[in-house]
Amino acid sequence: MERSHIVIAYVGGGSRNWAIKLMGDLALSEHLSGELRLYDIDAAAAAHNAGLGEAIFARPEAKGSFALKVCQTLRSVLSGADFVIISIEPGPTEARYADLVIPARHGIVQTVGDTTGPGGLLRALRSVPLMAEIGRAVMECCPGARVINYTNPMTLCVAALHDAAPGILAHGCCHEVYAVQERTAAVVAQELGLAAAPLRSEIEIEIAGVNHFTLAASIRYKGEELLPMLRRRALALLGADGAFSDASSAARTRREGEAWFDCDGLVSLEFLLRLGVLGAAGDRHLAEFVPWFLADEATINSYGVPLTPYEWRIAARDAPRPSVAAVAGRPLSPSGEEGVSQIEALLGHRRVKTNINMPNQGQWSDAPLGHVVETNALVEEGRITPLAAGALPPAAAALERLVIAEQALVLEAAKRRDSALALEALLIDPLVRMPPARARAMLGEMLEYAAPWLPGWRGLA
Amino acid sequence: MERSHIVIAYVGGGSRNWAIKLMGDLALSEHLSGELRLYDIDAAAAAHNAGLGEAIFARPEAKGSFALKVCQTLRSVLSGADFVIISIEPGPTEARYADLVIPARHGIVQTVGDTTGPGGLLRALRSVPLMAEIGRAVMECCPGARVINYTNPMTLCVAALHDAAPGILAHGCCHEVYAVQERTAAVVAQELGLAAAPLRSEIEIEIAGVNHFTLAASIRYKGEELLPMLRRRALALLGADGAFSDASSAARTRREGEAWFDCDGLVSLEFLLRLGVLGAAGDRHLAEFVPWFLADEATINSYGVPLTPYEWRIAARDAPRPSVAAVAGRPLSPSGEEGVSQIEALLGHRRVKTNINMPNQGQWSDAPLGHVVETNALVEEGRITPLAAGALPPAAAALERLVIAEQALVLEAAKRRDSALALEALLIDPLVRMPPARARAMLGEMLEYAAPWLPGWRGLA
Amino acid sequence: MERSHIVIAYVGGGSRNWAIKLMGDLALSEHLSGELRLYDIDAAAAAHNAGLGEAIFARPEAKGSFALKVCQTLRSVLSGADFVIISIEPGPTEARYADLVIPARHGIVQTVGDTTGPGGLLRALRSVPLMAEIGRAVMECCPGARVINYTNPMTLCVAALHDAAPGILAHGCCHEVYAVQERTAAVVAQELGLAAAPLRSEIEIEIAGVNHFTLAASIRYKGEELLPMLRRRALALLGADGAFSDASSAARTRREGEAWFDCDGLVSLEFLLRLGVLGAAGDRHLAEFVPWFLADEATINSYGVPLTPYEWRIAARDAPRPSVAAVAGRPLSPSGEEGVSQIEALLGHRRVKTNINMPNQGQWSDAPLGHVVETNALVEEGRITPLAAGALPPAAAALERLVIAEQALVLEAAKRRDSALALEALLIDPLVRMPPARARAMLGEMLEYAAPWLPGWRGLA
Amino acid sequence: MERSHIVIAYVGGGSRNWAIKLMGDLALSEHLSGELRLYDIDAAAAAHNAGLGEAIFARPEAKGSFALKVCQTLRSVLSGADFVIISIEPGPTEARYADLVIPARHGIVQTVGDTTGPGGLLRALRSVPLMAEIGRAVMECCPGARVINYTNPMTLCVAALHDAAPGILAHGCCHEVYAVQERTAAVVAQELGLAAAPLRSEIEIEIAGVNHFTLAASIRYKGEELLPMLRRRALALLGADGAFSDASSAARTRREGEAWFDCDGLVSLEFLLRLGVLGAAGDRHLAEFVPWFLADEATINSYGVPLTPYEWRIAARDAPRPSVAAVAGRPLSPSGEEGVSQIEALLGHRRVKTNINMPNQGQWSDAPLGHVVETNALVEEGRITPLAAGALPPAAAALERLVIAEQALVLEAAKRRDSALALEALLIDPLVRMPPARARAMLGEMLEYAAPWLPGWRGLA
Repeated sequence: MERSHIVIAYVGGGSRNWAIKLMGDLALSEHLSGELRLYDIDAAAAAHNAGLGEAIFARPEAKGSFALKVCQTLRSVLSGADFVIISIEPGPTEARYADLVIPARHGIVQTVGDTTGPGGLLRALRSVPLMAEIGRAVMECCPGARVINYTNPMTLCVAALHDAAPGILAHGCCHEVYAVQERTAAVVAQELGLAAAPLRSEIEIEIAGVNHFTLAASIRYKGEELLPMLRRRALALLGADGAFSDASSAARTRREGEAWFDCDGLVSLEFLLRLGVLGAAGDRHLAEFVPWFLADEATINSYGVPLTPYEWRIAARDAPRPSVAAVAGRPLSPSGEEGVSQIEALLGHRRVKTNINMPNQGQWSDAPLGHVVETNALVEEGRITPLAAGALPPAAAALERLVIAEQALVLEAAKRRDSALALEALLIDPLVRMPPARARAMLGEMLEYAAPWLPGWRGLA
Repeated sequence: MERSHIVIAYVGGGSRNWAIKLMGDLALSEHLSGELRLYDIDAAAAAHNAGLGEAIFARPEAKGSFALKVCQTLRSVLSGADFVIISIEPGPTEARYADLVIPARHGIVQTVGDTTGPGGLLRALRSVPLMAEIGRAVMECCPGARVINYTNPMTLCVAALHDAAPGILAHGCCHEVYAVQERTAAVVAQELGLAAAPLRSEIEIEIAGVNHFTLAASIRYKGEELLPMLRRRALALLGADGAFSDASSAARTRREGEAWFDCDGLVSLEFLLRLGVLGAAGDRHLAEFVPWFLADEATINSYGVPLTPYEWRIAARDAPRPSVAAVAGRPLSPSGEEGVSQIEALLGHRRVKTNINMPNQGQWSDAPLGHVVETNALVEEGRITPLAAGALPPAAAALERLVIAEQALVLEAAKRRDSALALEALLIDPLVRMPPARARAMLGEMLEYAAPWLPGWRGLA
Repeated sequence: MERSHIVIAYVGGGSRNWAIKLMGDLALSEHLSGELRLYDIDAAAAAHNAGLGEAIFARPEAKGSFALKVCQTLRSVLSGADFVIISIEPGPTEARYADLVIPARHGIVQTVGDTTGPGGLLRALRSVPLMAEIGRAVMECCPGARVINYTNPMTLCVAALHDAAPGILAHGCCHEVYAVQERTAAVVAQELGLAAAPLRSEIEIEIAGVNHFTLAASIRYKGEELLPMLRRRALALLGADGAFSDASSAARTRREGEAWFDCDGLVSLEFLLRLGVLGAAGDRHLAEFVPWFLADEATINSYGVPLTPYEWRIAARDAPRPSVAAVAGRPLSPSGEEGVSQIEALLGHRRVKTNINMPNQGQWSDAPLGHVVETNALVEEGRITPLAAGALPPAAAALERLVIAEQALVLEAAKRRDSALALEALLIDPLVRMPPARARAMLGEMLEYAAPWLPGWRGLA
Repeated sequence: MERSHIVIAYVGGGSRNWAIKLMGDLALSEHLSGELRLYDIDAAAAAHNAGLGEAIFARPEAKGSFALKVCQTLRSVLSGADFVIISIEPGPTEARYADLVIPARHGIVQTVGDTTGPGGLLRALRSVPLMAEIGRAVMECCPGARVINYTNPMTLCVAALHDAAPGILAHGCCHEVYAVQERTAAVVAQELGLAAAPLRSEIEIEIAGVNHFTLAASIRYKGEELLPMLRRRALALLGADGAFSDASSAARTRREGEAWFDCDGLVSLEFLLRLGVLGAAGDRHLAEFVPWFLADEATINSYGVPLTPYEWRIAARDAPRPSVAAVAGRPLSPSGEEGVSQIEALLGHRRVKTNINMPNQGQWSDAPLGHVVETNALVEEGRITPLAAGALPPAAAALERLVIAEQALVLEAAKRRDSALALEALLIDPLVRMPPARARAMLGEMLEYAAPWLPGWRGLA
């Protein structure tokens, strides 16, 4: 099949991380070429990335060739695009103070705070109107384009696209499941005494859930179910009788090494041990969807998970970006992300089975139709079809449905700019166990702090 | 219409409280007479109650006449009965140590502990097999009889009857809603400057939920909706801005006066203020279904609710029963319960609209079909028909559904005697926020302590 | 309780039948008085009825007093109304040619043709926009008024009100169930050897379905289930083995006597015999919802049902209206309709349990939420609450759901004026079994004939 | 990957058609070898097929090698099997007299009569107990085996397996969709002027429905949606205005040439034209699920479809089987069936996307969970996962749901041997429009004739 020539519009093209990965993967593609347009409200960042992109596509090992173009408006980046990538930040890093530090002052411990909990809620209130605007612009400028979102909170960002732009061909792509496959591949190698770990793609995992709270009822290698083996492992690590082996020292090492995103999968294994389904995301994310792990910092540390300090986030934001020279001198290697592979599949160059966030059309029978859920899907020429994941065990399904109800309320709150609805959502969040008046006060502080990035909101009702 | 002659079988007829109320109401009935049979595993208590009953029916103001009969077996009390009343205690009062004191040691505060939370769960594990046995015996001995249950946990007791005895004509009857009507009647009198409070029956309340977690989307007096007025009251009492007026001194007074069952309805009003539906049960019950009020004793005290000490329960159990002489000398008055009124309605002497616990056949659209729910129903000759309560607001519905999922798991756990399922139920209980291993240890202690009243269980899986 | 003073707006106040009945019942009410406003696009008819009304309220036995007022616009009749009655004709009687005669030419036999089948479909296409207009006007002029609809097709008229005017307090009221109660009362008298038939209200009937296709899973007299007796009767009349007793001569007698609306309930009994639920409407209506009875005229005649000729309808339309003198000289008697009784109940003068057409909020678990269904309901001060009817037997439910799907398509077709959707609805109608192209041709003829009363339609797509 | 060595148990191994195709495909497989066991109640037929099999595997072009074994009992064929193939005939060909000829005498025209309609119903009553027996035997003898069913009525045979043997790994495989792909490939070649038709596998078709009533909301070639082109074709062939081009002469030609199984897809195109989804099965099957085509023989002939005479079926049954010599001399060629390809995929040799009949776990959101439905699925090592097909357009979904309700009743009727339930099913069948008493008489004749193959039935209730 011939190489496809396409126009990709990158919304949030000043991204420090995703844009560079994408450009590297595009350069390594044997099937794609065309134009890559970058748009960002930080125009300088987009321009800098364009420079990096030129260096990347100029690398000798680059196979694909993409012309870089910096766009100054949302409409200009979208017009005529075949694919749209969205990875935006809803407000500056300082906005995360309201997501993380204010709840912490009220006793709520969050490991990430971008998906659920008070932090995820506030971030959603900021993101939903931005996604809605992008969605509407897509329907005007490139209604047939495929839209791939990377922005968190994933579920509500994809939901906002579909809600504001019915008929949009948008889905969300998240790498948390891949890490579970890789961790499991390492375990398989160890258990089977293999010289090398299997490829991630050789670990077949069947998931259902909302993004970052995906649960796996099956994970296989060469057709064999691995859950029994993982369950034995969980029993050994977590203990059947309550005296579970403390991983606080691992958390301490991670904190000292600033390895904020690492984990041992102990939280993931707790779900397997107690509810019969493996947690299929990083522990930092999984821990936020139930009230079991975050009563205080010591508890979550005992699962090997440190808390990322707000200050580190600010510092990371201020770190210098890579120079063109540095990038030009660095050999290309696959990022491990799957966006480019999905684009190739949608153009007919391959067929890919991978985890996808899309409105539920039945693929997960515990969730209401229409709610954005994450399951496997088959990506083929011109079509993404979810694979039926059936139902989760009842306790797991009940926990998921509570989160789904919260997400539906947050979406409504964001659309109507309704603080009473936002409070309802907050009150049913699993991390919130304070008297309603105190939750209301906390929300009031958060909304007040974040007011600059919440246009149209009028404070607490 | 002529007086109906019926046979009533009272299972748990040694009851210290319910049996006496029932006999008083039967004596005051203008429509009923016949035979009242008492059966209890504490045969002496049943015999004592029979003596009290004779004194009651001998009172000059008694209108109905019932022959008292003490039965020695379940089958003999049931054979040929027209109505069956169930009010049993699943195990001795000491069993409540496992329900209440063990969870408290693990940091879980419970105000009642007989319906939900760890205590309600354990009590259900003890009750379900007893109710199943009664249900099967009913289908053998008096399959057309109407069965009225008063035992807690109400939802799971009624569910166990229907699960074990498909086709049984059983429902549950609970007075918690009446108290909300009475409290509201007092408020109406105060607000409207009436000389006397309206009758409880003049306060029309539309409820949906599971027993003790019923929520009202409408409450009316003479056709006028009272929720706006109650909302203003809630705002005044609970505060919009988080500085809510502390009712800890009311809790203190109650504790000192041993007024364990009183409340001001502040918890009930919080549901109205935050979720838009009035809590339609006592605060002690409502507080246990969400994690907002029971983080510690001080928090629940601040809502005017004291914690009932386990020791008081033991002492109350040991208090002497009323003597025949005392009862014979005491004028009869209506108990305020509705069992006799429902029996009269089922026999065609009146038509009653009241709250009833029955399997969902659509009356509450948030709940799965078949789950035992509490809504209003119309009680007519030979038939009880639930009134459609529609749907609750989304946040309220989400909280209810979590409880419903827990109840379904508890029923299965009780039937299969499966501690892994019981742990799953415990882990999704709103009062539980500890690491799973700790919850498992707590459950282990509870099951071990309660082992004498859990025949067939083999400890933790 | 004092007499209530109310304003009633009658839309379609020139009605030859319903308006006179309503005025008679109002005159006999001990609880109501006030103003009755009549509005009709046939202003002369409304004025004539006003004259009749004055005569009625001047009768010596009249208890209630209503001032009559003829209104010239929809908005003037509605402004400030407490109750709105709707009984309109969607187009002149000639429009029924398209409903009845054109389908007959294509081989489709219809007994009524105003509810379902091709005739009901076309009548719905004419009615829905009119009802939508009235609904929107109600929300502008008297948003808190209770709206009672008598117009057919009932389901789609009530659906159109709710669809166009969310929040409208509208329900539909139909007398077909009353006739089944009366017929059953006569049977009860005969079977029990009673001197007089029981009152209609003494026959308790539990129904579920869409209007005119309501089915009863229970019908009782003094608490006793009558279905087994009716089933024996059905067996005797209809035959177990296929040789059913032909009632064609009854049909002939009815045809000759122009007793078009009479029936023996044989169709109703067929539903009981074959599906286990009694047909709870007149045979002429029931027969149109399944393909069993209307293959040809002889078949339906054999059930004792004649076909009403179109010519008779035209003649009936042209019959002279009663004169004021005639009405003034005629003693008042209750009409047997329940509109006035429902108004009294809504004002708190009584409590009424009766059949009501309302959006499904769970009262009938076979139907989708929101679809207008007919079940019993409790009419109380300020509130109508449906009674839960549960589920029908599976075969009955399947037939109902097909009709429900058709109705949903017809509503959409009427709103969008979309002939392709109308054809889809027609193709799934139980009376249609022709090749699609022929059904399309028939629909084309019907739409063309009815074009004057279908503003905005552009013919077949 | 190495060749897999497996044991295949063929139940119905005397099959004249499917067994020979399967053996040919096994012989051509590069991935499989092992043992093929044949079992049939006609032991001679199984033995004859074993002889043919030996000739097939001895062909020079055969790649796979399978040892043939004739088994005398169900348990011996199943014990230790890895795969089970089921293609049985429920009763002798004479039983089809009751399926086809008796209904025809009552005016019901059927084109196949093995899936739905009176014939399909009766055939299901015969098949369900046989499938239940096989299912139970599988769970005893080879519980981990994959079971592939080819027997009709497909939906109810697969349903019976799952109902009688919960946890069985059974699915149904049907070639009707392949023919639609092939017909469409030919159209694509013609429209695009291609030298050769695309491969069947290049035509991507997305289906939902019950077997033989599958409907396609998308059919693509190289990523391009073909429905608009097919719709234009349908308009040209079937006519927009009702004057559709008569294909009766094609039917006549087919009748004369005994080409009973051919069709032009005109019925398939009617579904596209009228309901927006392409009929994805042969016209003979599709026509039986709606009342549009089978009012009489002329109507169905006008779509190019002849009626297969019962006599031909008897004659075909009596035709001589191929001799070993004939088969030994005939070069192998792929049968076009997919059973072997699915077995290879389940063993990890490939990944296959194809249409599969399985219990609904959400893959088709119009159908109840658990009902056996046909959609695409992904066949992988050790797992078959349905692809989410979403929802059909409302009218199509309504027609499907009626059939689903009928199927559920037939399954219950077959299990309980309950003729009243069978009559309920018959009465809601789209082909039945006679008075219930006549339908009952017809069913009585059918049951009486088929009594020898309906053990345990006691005639009409």
